[in-house]
Amino acid sequence: MKVAIQGELGSFSHQAAMKMVPGGSIVPCARSAEVFERVAGGMLAVIPLENTLAGSVAEHFDLLLTHRAFIRSEFRLRIVHNLIALSGVTLRQIRRVYSHPVALEQCRSLFRRNAKLDAIPFYDTAGSVKHLVENRIEDAAAIASQKAASVYNARILRAGIEDDKRNYTRFVVIHRSRKVIPGANKTSIAFQLKNESGALFKALSVFALRDISLSKIESRPLKGSPWEYVFYLDLLRGHDAQARNALRDLAEMSQSLKILGVYKAA
Amino acid sequence: MKVAIQGELGSFSHQAAMKMVPGGSIVPCARSAEVFERVAGGMLAVIPLENTLAGSVAEHFDLLLTHRAFIRSEFRLRIVHNLIALSGVTLRQIRRVYSHPVALEQCRSLFRRNAKLDAIPFYDTAGSVKHLVENRIEDAAAIASQKAASVYNARILRAGIEDDKRNYTRFVVIHRSRKVIPGANKTSIAFQLKNESGALFKALSVFALRDISLSKIESRPLKGSPWEYVFYLDLLRGHDAQARNALRDLAEMSQSLKILGVYKAA
Repeated sequence: MKVAIQGELGSFSHQAAMKMVPGGSIVPCARSAEVFERVAGGMLAVIPLENTLAGSVAEHFDLLLTHRAFIRSEFRLRIVHNLIALSGVTLRQIRRVYSHPVALEQCRSLFRRNAKLDAIPFYDTAGSVKHLVENRIEDAAAIASQKAASVYNARILRAGIEDDKRNYTRFVVIHRSRKVIPGANKTSIAFQLKNESGALFKALSVFALRDISLSKIESRPLKGSPWEYVFYLDLLRGHDAQARNALRDLAEMSQSLKILGVYKAA
Repeated sequence: MKVAIQGELGSFSHQAAMKMVPGGSIVPCARSAEVFERVAGGMLAVIPLENTLAGSVAEHFDLLLTHRAFIRSEFRLRIVHNLIALSGVTLRQIRRVYSHPVALEQCRSLFRRNAKLDAIPFYDTAGSVKHLVENRIEDAAAIASQKAASVYNARILRAGIEDDKRNYTRFVVIHRSRKVIPGANKTSIAFQLKNESGALFKALSVFALRDISLSKIESRPLKGSPWEYVFYLDLLRGHDAQARNALRDLAEMSQSLKILGVYKAA
């Protein structure tokens, strides 16, 4: 089974895909829009939606809204950063450390403890390991996933160097066909309301009056219509009669409503 | 007056700072945490909070919550991308284009129309212009703001190359002292609720029952406490009696409530 991901082999998306679709064959895509084109063609994809420290991946929420793609399952990956170099290279030889700015920022204590190391921003975590290996750079290291070290045949010098261990990314598997997963207990939706005061309060009443819990809410500018908003909401219920009735009531007061997936909570 | 920004001179933050604090002297900081340290020391700062296409800058919302920093004003900057090269270099000579991945993604039509151009991800937009100039690179260009071209003495080959003109970033001026701006008509708050179903519905009732409009709502995981959430909300009211009463009621039902600023809407 083919699984599209955004980014290089060895990325955290690659790591999540191995967990979520065991035995899947990974198709790396340079851009997220490409991932959604693959999904339209019938492929599965694994995409990150939010990180506990860095927040929502806005582009993926926008693409979920505008493409035929439905969430099948979710997974929370603990983000573990590693200091990675060419095999044979030791920490003493390292002067520079390449990685994505977010990863560099999440490993400040490494740089405090090793004053001789310069942090060099790079566009991608796994890509920085690939860069070291392809150019045989021996006086630098990269910060990336364990998977990146194994994919590019490099060596982990220090494992688990992230400052905050409570660093998780929520990934989802998406597919073009809409399917309610048996045993589902979570529903993700997107909806647009009339621009009136109290509109959101009324919308949430359909859940509150049925004691349905929410686990996420976010307003996002509607792409192409500045100052109009779309709401993304997760409810902790599957496809039972109460949840279906709540969504029917919400549809009645919404300008548009899309069910992004009905699946098992991680 | 000194104004701290995150990023290089010539960044969009630099451009916003010139508009928001005319005549201010810019203090570039490598990291956002540094910007907030400067604010604690008494400096003004200009930071981006959200972009219509890329979404919220989660790190800045987290830092606003945990630091003594209050919003004084807001501004919406239209993001205009330009193709920039060393002066004397023409489009014909260019083979590679450096920029931040988000900027490259927002200028896809440039690459479709010029098939010989390779997009090369770089950690920063203004930094990519600095890189070209410092290394006297003549077969490459960068995508960045007009300000970056003037700061580094480079030349704009093509102006306004972004695909979607509805690309705005909301910037705010922050300062350590809490002050209600005269004529204020917008209030930004952050609050944490008990984890109960209906808690958010009840919280929003304090605004809905007074016909107070909201312009943004977002739940974010509370840093350091996975699966606990903090809500960020903007209300379209200043410091009038009704708004104060609404916030008093909200404080009563919240575990914590912080007023991030009372200022004039852009």
